[in-house]
Amino acid sequence: MSFEFKSTSFIGNSRGSETGKTFTAFSPETGEAVGPEFHSATIVEMNRAANLAENAFGELSRKSGKEKAEFLRRIAEKLEEKKADIVERASLETGLPKARFEGETGRTCGQLRMFADLAQEGSWVDARIDTAETERAPLPKPDVRSMKRALGPVAVFCASNFPIAFSVAGGDTASAFAAGSPVIVNAHNAHPGTSEIAASAISEAVNECGFPEGTFSLLFSADYEIGSALVAHPSIKAVGFTGSRAGGRALMDIAAKRDEPIPVYAEMSSVNPVFVLPRAAEEKADSIAEGLFSSFTLGYGQFCTKPGLAFLPGNGGYGAIVSRLNQLSRESSGKPLLTSGIRNSFIEKISERGAAQAAAKGYAVESVVFETSVGEFRSTPELHEEVFGPSTLAISFGEVAELVDIAEDLEGQLTATIHGTDEDIAEAEELIAVLEKKVGRIVFNGFPTGVEVCHSMVHGGPYPATSFSGTTSVGTRAIERFTKLVCFQDAPDSVLPDELKDGNPLGIVRMKDGVIGRT
Amino acid sequence: MSFEFKSTSFIGNSRGSETGKTFTAFSPETGEAVGPEFHSATIVEMNRAANLAENAFGELSRKSGKEKAEFLRRIAEKLEEKKADIVERASLETGLPKARFEGETGRTCGQLRMFADLAQEGSWVDARIDTAETERAPLPKPDVRSMKRALGPVAVFCASNFPIAFSVAGGDTASAFAAGSPVIVNAHNAHPGTSEIAASAISEAVNECGFPEGTFSLLFSADYEIGSALVAHPSIKAVGFTGSRAGGRALMDIAAKRDEPIPVYAEMSSVNPVFVLPRAAEEKADSIAEGLFSSFTLGYGQFCTKPGLAFLPGNGGYGAIVSRLNQLSRESSGKPLLTSGIRNSFIEKISERGAAQAAAKGYAVESVVFETSVGEFRSTPELHEEVFGPSTLAISFGEVAELVDIAEDLEGQLTATIHGTDEDIAEAEELIAVLEKKVGRIVFNGFPTGVEVCHSMVHGGPYPATSFSGTTSVGTRAIERFTKLVCFQDAPDSVLPDELKDGNPLGIVRMKDGVIGRT
Repeated sequence: MSFEFKSTSFIGNSRGSETGKTFTAFSPETGEAVGPEFHSATIVEMNRAANLAENAFGELSRKSGKEKAEFLRRIAEKLEEKKADIVERASLETGLPKARFEGETGRTCGQLRMFADLAQEGSWVDARIDTAETERAPLPKPDVRSMKRALGPVAVFCASNFPIAFSVAGGDTASAFAAGSPVIVNAHNAHPGTSEIAASAISEAVNECGFPEGTFSLLFSADYEIGSALVAHPSIKAVGFTGSRAGGRALMDIAAKRDEPIPVYAEMSSVNPVFVLPRAAEEKADSIAEGLFSSFTLGYGQFCTKPGLAFLPGNGGYGAIVSRLNQLSRESSGKPLLTSGIRNSFIEKISERGAAQAAAKGYAVESVVFETSVGEFRSTPELHEEVFGPSTLAISFGEVAELVDIAEDLEGQLTATIHGTDEDIAEAEELIAVLEKKVGRIVFNGFPTGVEVCHSMVHGGPYPATSFSGTTSVGTRAIERFTKLVCFQDAPDSVLPDELKDGNPLGIVRMKDGVIGRT
Repeated sequence: MSFEFKSTSFIGNSRGSETGKTFTAFSPETGEAVGPEFHSATIVEMNRAANLAENAFGELSRKSGKEKAEFLRRIAEKLEEKKADIVERASLETGLPKARFEGETGRTCGQLRMFADLAQEGSWVDARIDTAETERAPLPKPDVRSMKRALGPVAVFCASNFPIAFSVAGGDTASAFAAGSPVIVNAHNAHPGTSEIAASAISEAVNECGFPEGTFSLLFSADYEIGSALVAHPSIKAVGFTGSRAGGRALMDIAAKRDEPIPVYAEMSSVNPVFVLPRAAEEKADSIAEGLFSSFTLGYGQFCTKPGLAFLPGNGGYGAIVSRLNQLSRESSGKPLLTSGIRNSFIEKISERGAAQAAAKGYAVESVVFETSVGEFRSTPELHEEVFGPSTLAISFGEVAELVDIAEDLEGQLTATIHGTDEDIAEAEELIAVLEKKVGRIVFNGFPTGVEVCHSMVHGGPYPATSFSGTTSVGTRAIERFTKLVCFQDAPDSVLPDELKDGNPLGIVRMKDGVIGRT
């Protein structure tokens, strides 16, 4: 590894002190601490980062789409330069294989370039123009023009389970930068080394592109103190978070109690039900079982979209699918979870469900398949809870009609999945209608893990899957979270942003007098 | 008046009981109670309304744009049929002239028809399609499609100051219906009669259009009990509110503490600063003073967008403008405010600023102009507060550069207004940049009252002007508040909403593989 850790926070263009609380990463493979020792930011440093972000905001929010695109592409290039170090360190800090981080780095760079293209193309601002009618009676109609603008400094909390794609240079950061908002990242203390490398990539890009100091800061934090204070800081105008339900809700509560409440875009917990309909279960029991097994053990079961519930027809398919799942589970070897906390929680939750696991090296656990019936599931609230790690719950049902009531009872979810033949799906109209209310994304004859990064993706869903079901943290719509609307009435063309000027100098898609086009 | 009041709540298709607390409207002209006596909804009735709304939601959310458009237009027709009664009763309950309500009813019907057109045209759903690439390596790309869908039952709180346009059948209700969300209105107890007439219009439209029971309910309420319980009800998924800062924040706090927190779209308080730049002040002192006087006394100073602060150049223009404002104020006669509470608050706030008014008939007050300097303004937080009623504060400044710091100090506002010649405006670039962060709408050489209802309007702004600066309560973007995203992955065309089907059967504007068009 060529990267030399300084192990201190990034406070604008400077590095933090070594006076804060210290902590280290741990190797999930061995359970042992790995160096170096990292230094938490102090409250003074957090305040300085927030002030720098506020000062940077004016200049940053008025950068052109082209300038923001160059900056985002530069970050991607810097990450690629550091890819070998990122992959090595991320694997060390997470216990996940290096190949995974080859992919995750690629995905992250792709995401940065997607937002670069979005910023450069420019139509995302939803520019609207209603032209004046000075002769209108009884009152003349003014010229009114509006668009989305950057909201202000954003606090981003990193996920434990995606140390690159949902962390320092991940989707929240990329979408906030694309909007023109400064970002202060609260690093996850399970992967501080990976965070420092990614932060150095962003920091170099800030300097090379001549972006203002305060565009980016990164705060290390041994515990919750710094992050909580950051969300309460008056300069912060929105929060992006990926993590647990308890963590997300704690930040939502802090944000709601501020003198000026701010939105927290939290992506939290989801059990991602899979509904296997009768004909599909008969026809494809093996391939469904294999796909389901791959999906719920991907990333060792630590994906937000892990299918934690599988509804299988008791009169056909259930036995074959569960038997195959158990076989695959027996054949697989134990693998380490991300942190001791995640391992302890997994062991506790599976023991509540009657499963035990032998002590293992590091944070290793084995995958486990639970079984229940629709009746027991409905009467046991604990079975609705997310179990983070490689387990799923097979639930045998009788009639497809039962699934409608089951779906109505579910909490909000990121995803639901339906396996069915065309005939099955035609009979599931009511189920689909209910799922549209309950989830962000409905997957047909596939599996929910693997979230495509594209314009139409929705990685969101009703609470407690996320805090706002009208938004997404993956895909180009993610940029909308970090914006405010601004409107100009009878403004001279000279003071208008280019997006709203007469003649459409940027050539973006706009709505003009209700008509959408490039005029 | 031909309308016969039943004076009870609308609980779906039935009327509420007469067992709840009673209250009456008051005539602001006389200060005396006017009949009939209205009956608050009970908690049982509120629960019933919420359950009916939840039950109606599935069917309502899947109504076509054409069906929703017919429903919205039917409401407008019904309001027009009842216009004479609405105008008479609204004038009685508010002390505002009948002509005002001729206009406000027209505006409200226009708004309903605007949302009808929006729903029928259909492109508002932001449909996006990314087509599959089955040959992509290492993983095939799925077919992903997404759009906005109705969120669920919405609670709407009526404004005291716009008993038609921001009340029962106002913008919040119209935009929620256009999205496909049921609405439960909490009537304002200052204008229950106007509310009942408008509610009967909506109720008739629900029945005539065959919309499901629970599409609409209206709850009368003598105090805050019913409204608070409504916001806490698990079936409610969002809140629209127009009113005071204290009232909006109270609802935000209730919503944030729910097991499932929900968004409250509250439009609250704003002092709407006007900045008169030196050359404009010299050239147009009289017309600026006259426009400002009309604007701050419109609706007797009880508009959300009332200009409550006027920054005037001390070295030129200030004297002439203030002298003309005072002259206009002396020449005008006292007029009644909407409620005794608003009158008492106005008298209290102006007496804090050293003004007194003689006792008058009913809730009448006289307009008043206060004066201060930039220095005193900056050091006196009370001067930044909204005074609801016909008063404004003239503030003399020295250099235009001072205004930048003033603007930085301001709380979030609905609007800011700049009066300036082209030369003035060219010199105010920095001021405009700050105002873009602080306000929803910047008006040039006009006045902030009179909010045009159109696609590009932004009637929003940073807290405490509203609760979310990314949204608006006026204009077609208002529909977005009451939606969630839903995404379909590899769905058969048969189960997709028409908006996402191959071949674009509705002919709406969509984004397909990143390209915006009608394909």
